[in-house]
Amino acid sequence: MPAPRFIASDNTSGICPEALDYLLQANACDDLAYGDDAWTQRAVEGLRQLFDCDCEVFFVFNGTAANSLALAAMGQSYHSVICHELAHIETDECGAPEFFSNGAKLLTASGANGKLTPEGIERLMARRDDIHFPRPKVVSVTQATEVGTVYSREELLALRSVADKYELRLHMDGARFANACAALDASPAELTWQAGVDVLCFSGTKNGLAMGEVVIFFNRELAEDFGYRCKQAGQLASKMRFIAAPWLGLLETGAWRRNAEHANAMARYLAAGLDGLPGAELLFPPQANSVFVRFPPPLLAYLRELGWTFYTFIGASGVRFVCAWNTTPELLDSLLADIRLALDAGLSETST
Amino acid sequence: MPAPRFIASDNTSGICPEALDYLLQANACDDLAYGDDAWTQRAVEGLRQLFDCDCEVFFVFNGTAANSLALAAMGQSYHSVICHELAHIETDECGAPEFFSNGAKLLTASGANGKLTPEGIERLMARRDDIHFPRPKVVSVTQATEVGTVYSREELLALRSVADKYELRLHMDGARFANACAALDASPAELTWQAGVDVLCFSGTKNGLAMGEVVIFFNRELAEDFGYRCKQAGQLASKMRFIAAPWLGLLETGAWRRNAEHANAMARYLAAGLDGLPGAELLFPPQANSVFVRFPPPLLAYLRELGWTFYTFIGASGVRFVCAWNTTPELLDSLLADIRLALDAGLSETST
Amino acid sequence: MPAPRFIASDNTSGICPEALDYLLQANACDDLAYGDDAWTQRAVEGLRQLFDCDCEVFFVFNGTAANSLALAAMGQSYHSVICHELAHIETDECGAPEFFSNGAKLLTASGANGKLTPEGIERLMARRDDIHFPRPKVVSVTQATEVGTVYSREELLALRSVADKYELRLHMDGARFANACAALDASPAELTWQAGVDVLCFSGTKNGLAMGEVVIFFNRELAEDFGYRCKQAGQLASKMRFIAAPWLGLLETGAWRRNAEHANAMARYLAAGLDGLPGAELLFPPQANSVFVRFPPPLLAYLRELGWTFYTFIGASGVRFVCAWNTTPELLDSLLADIRLALDAGLSETST
Amino acid sequence: MPAPRFIASDNTSGICPEALDYLLQANACDDLAYGDDAWTQRAVEGLRQLFDCDCEVFFVFNGTAANSLALAAMGQSYHSVICHELAHIETDECGAPEFFSNGAKLLTASGANGKLTPEGIERLMARRDDIHFPRPKVVSVTQATEVGTVYSREELLALRSVADKYELRLHMDGARFANACAALDASPAELTWQAGVDVLCFSGTKNGLAMGEVVIFFNRELAEDFGYRCKQAGQLASKMRFIAAPWLGLLETGAWRRNAEHANAMARYLAAGLDGLPGAELLFPPQANSVFVRFPPPLLAYLRELGWTFYTFIGASGVRFVCAWNTTPELLDSLLADIRLALDAGLSETST
Repeated sequence: MPAPRFIASDNTSGICPEALDYLLQANACDDLAYGDDAWTQRAVEGLRQLFDCDCEVFFVFNGTAANSLALAAMGQSYHSVICHELAHIETDECGAPEFFSNGAKLLTASGANGKLTPEGIERLMARRDDIHFPRPKVVSVTQATEVGTVYSREELLALRSVADKYELRLHMDGARFANACAALDASPAELTWQAGVDVLCFSGTKNGLAMGEVVIFFNRELAEDFGYRCKQAGQLASKMRFIAAPWLGLLETGAWRRNAEHANAMARYLAAGLDGLPGAELLFPPQANSVFVRFPPPLLAYLRELGWTFYTFIGASGVRFVCAWNTTPELLDSLLADIRLALDAGLSETST
Repeated sequence: MPAPRFIASDNTSGICPEALDYLLQANACDDLAYGDDAWTQRAVEGLRQLFDCDCEVFFVFNGTAANSLALAAMGQSYHSVICHELAHIETDECGAPEFFSNGAKLLTASGANGKLTPEGIERLMARRDDIHFPRPKVVSVTQATEVGTVYSREELLALRSVADKYELRLHMDGARFANACAALDASPAELTWQAGVDVLCFSGTKNGLAMGEVVIFFNRELAEDFGYRCKQAGQLASKMRFIAAPWLGLLETGAWRRNAEHANAMARYLAAGLDGLPGAELLFPPQANSVFVRFPPPLLAYLRELGWTFYTFIGASGVRFVCAWNTTPELLDSLLADIRLALDAGLSETST
Repeated sequence: MPAPRFIASDNTSGICPEALDYLLQANACDDLAYGDDAWTQRAVEGLRQLFDCDCEVFFVFNGTAANSLALAAMGQSYHSVICHELAHIETDECGAPEFFSNGAKLLTASGANGKLTPEGIERLMARRDDIHFPRPKVVSVTQATEVGTVYSREELLALRSVADKYELRLHMDGARFANACAALDASPAELTWQAGVDVLCFSGTKNGLAMGEVVIFFNRELAEDFGYRCKQAGQLASKMRFIAAPWLGLLETGAWRRNAEHANAMARYLAAGLDGLPGAELLFPPQANSVFVRFPPPLLAYLRELGWTFYTFIGASGVRFVCAWNTTPELLDSLLADIRLALDAGLSETST
Repeated sequence: MPAPRFIASDNTSGICPEALDYLLQANACDDLAYGDDAWTQRAVEGLRQLFDCDCEVFFVFNGTAANSLALAAMGQSYHSVICHELAHIETDECGAPEFFSNGAKLLTASGANGKLTPEGIERLMARRDDIHFPRPKVVSVTQATEVGTVYSREELLALRSVADKYELRLHMDGARFANACAALDASPAELTWQAGVDVLCFSGTKNGLAMGEVVIFFNRELAEDFGYRCKQAGQLASKMRFIAAPWLGLLETGAWRRNAEHANAMARYLAAGLDGLPGAELLFPPQANSVFVRFPPPLLAYLRELGWTFYTFIGASGVRFVCAWNTTPELLDSLLADIRLALDAGLSETST
């Protein structure tokens, strides 16, 4: 077996230097537990500055919990959450939103490029309006989306408008929120509360931390007793500073955005290298840090033999490559070379 | 305000050198996510060796989750869990066991030195036996206990015996399991499966990690689909190696036990210094790394003014001091000096 | 075995004639389902008139569900409910409040005659105020209490006052609410919203129905989407009119109060017959329809042999007798005769 | 407004004479609560005889609860339930299966005539096999289906075969199970445990009761502590005999089957009357007691004006008529006359 070569996900990367530096600083001496330490307070303030908003901020361990707890705080068990059919909360959380909410249902809509549309929401709202089906209460969007595209500010405002019409709350799964800011050259505020987002789950893990996500309530009423909710749900870290300090490292050094810009640039680089290759078909516009491409099936097996890691969840032959803060052009060149070589050798022609 | 001086809990300490070393090693290159990395596999094997048992091992983020998920796997919502009235799962988890189990009830018994007794369990079992009250299914013990004492092997076997009588499962909250092993000079196997424990929650956080606990099923049937349970409950780390590698550091270097022995020794040192002081009354035998002492109330206020941090949860005047892997004799000398000075100055006489 | 003689509970009685009459009327022709029928609307209006209040009214199947759903609507999973240690929701619902709320904890206080006191609530509120323990959100009182006593209007107002101090909501378990109204010669309004009660669960089952309880929200905000909650929780009857029509029978004929007055009178009659008997000790003032009496243990066995049914849940020798809408003086005379005969024969002297 | 004419559902009908007779008998004297009465025991035995099986039997209030509790007993929160996309548990229970199971996900498959197929299950099983998605544990079929068709014994055995392949349990929603037995001229045993069904939810409400369903475990292991589950979930009736006695009435008099045969015959009569009418298109074979027909939209409005009640949930113009134990040919003649008159008058031609 050749050594694995990592291009499958931004969660195969490690801790970026800026985050590590702060983690080591936080380890220099003892500190208070459960977020009463100085690092946590500074990180909360840093996020308020970043978003230019007096928001409520909570740190949790991972994205499953961040999204599920946020959704649970936005509705009740007999409510439903409208999301795209490819939304991570629907496809990859093993029923966590249902579990944390004690039974809320996800209602899915289709939409080009992995994006919910006002029409998709309208269709779901028109379908039912009776007590025998969970009442829609939340719209959830993923920014950047699961297929590497981004919602423009105008698209977000259009969703907010239909959400207002039906008194729906707007949740943003920001697993790759930094990548979206970088892609759109927009400020965090512009893509969240200024576009009507009530709650954002902002991922640090995919942005260069070991672990740690933030749930940010722009709609502060929804945050009532949310600290208790986190504690009860096993999401209050006793040594909180080891989540907060690395976050502060991302914020104070600007690494949060630099990391995202780099990852996006690498994805563009990879997409450019794939574009036009006979046998390679880009499936979505590569707006953030992911590239989806359809290859001849034999090529997939060949790449795996060479140690390349990747997922195929858009059909059996739709490959996802994800770039991270530490993805190098060299790695991508090597990947592109392997692909070109294989395609030239006629692998594509043997595909079924 | 003077700088805080940390003696309140073993979760104010940072990451011990051995764990940090492995964390940095794990950060040297990318690796697979969700536990498919090499570190996680090695840590699982390390734990199996440590326990001399082909157990099932799962890593989660914190103790709230470890205990609550384990208990949820051991019963259903209409079952109950028998524990001591001072058990952490009853007093300090904000209802997490009830939440993860979707409603299981905790039934508490009293018992000297924070320990459940066979008689206490018998009394609870005798109380009810009808469908209108949750059926007892699990006995939960904390080893070392919340008041710094330990269950001997014989005590555990006696609890197992009564558990067998009523077909109850035996759960061990091992927030300070390493300290118990050190205190009793016993192997992990002797204090768990050899004493009839079905599931152990073994804390890394209090033993020198940034975060990370292990749920260990000696009764493997109870582990069926437990990985799904963790995932759904927001307890599957994507970058799992940053929990597993530090654990491996504890295991491979022996730090897990050395840290505990040190903390225990420091607690004995502190207790010895307090013993016999007029005005200071030791509340429990200091068998692990905690010391509980009753002081005149004015002394508490005085110590707080000097920056000493501590909790008082055994009555208003019962102070808990906890030693950790990095507690120094110098810190304890300084604490004892402050206490002696105050008592000599007559603070005790002004107590109400 | 002699035939059972029923004095154990008001749920061994059948359907009273007034309720049965309306049930049969409702069966005369088809009608709309899920509460869209005419009977349900009339019953809701009847309850609004009875309470002199534009309250929100929901019918459910039984008391377990009524109380648990009401409590779930009054708080979240990380909240707690303060109740008396003898409260039915704590002692006899198999964890239903915890289940429906997804984990809320019940905090119990003692209090003479089965009644919560302001001091009891104050003590619980003083105990904890941190994120590691569920935040109190609701006070629950049972009217009449589980031991056959009643809260006076003044006592309710005093509880409301302390509830206001801590922003707690006030829930009333009205399993025997009609008996309380009769006992205090008070109107339903005086004992509920005029005393600050937010939500009442009013039992029809114990008042002469086959089944069917009402959840009444005087605090209408708490009723938001409660219909969805009932549906999701399996408490929306498709043929709702068979719950609503019997309720209407109770209301329109005045049977709801007449039944309660009769049951209360029977309890007084029984208590009078027991009072002063050597060997019989009344345990609580018999203010509603229950009589609690301590007998010599051999008497209990003897009565059981004769077919008398009763519970003993206030200690092993504390007997509960409950009178219902159809309890007759003849039955009570027969019971009293059996008791007197046994006591005269010296059964009491053999007691341990 | 004309008086409503009921053909919308079998839950607009009242209590059939046989059930009422037994209900009145059960009301003749007091009896023990919570199922300890004689009626409940007799009804349980009656069901065991009917199914020719030593099954476990539990009475609950309604179908929402019966199905949801059964499914909760068949899996855990991180499991999933495979069902048809038109299954009532998916479309009309307001998330009850998710609520009672604390988060299990329903996975839906399409299939002709409202029926799951082995291929549909295979496709869902092939889709995912990883920890990030709930593990399938149960297959749920509705017999008769939501669109008035029935699974033959061979179809059930084929589903059981694929269930065996993947170790899935088989649940049957028997909201109209009696109608299926009548339609297939099969015994209850033939359509359940002899075809590999693990758990059946058998509706009394739609078969002529005021309310009351039975959960029957042929796989007795799954019934462990199910009584506790019912109690905790608010589904244990205190005056249980008022559910059990009417059930016994259905069983002992044979009304359970007679009612179903009558309703089925009425549906065939209605379908025969509709068949061949220009403008009326039968949507599914009318095998049980429902008839689905597509009408020109103006006809729907016209029928509603005349007081006819019906649902349209197969597209906007797909009407469902349901016959019950008390549906008369006269009513159907009157309905058919109204339809023919309207179609003759050209209503169909104005349809869009």
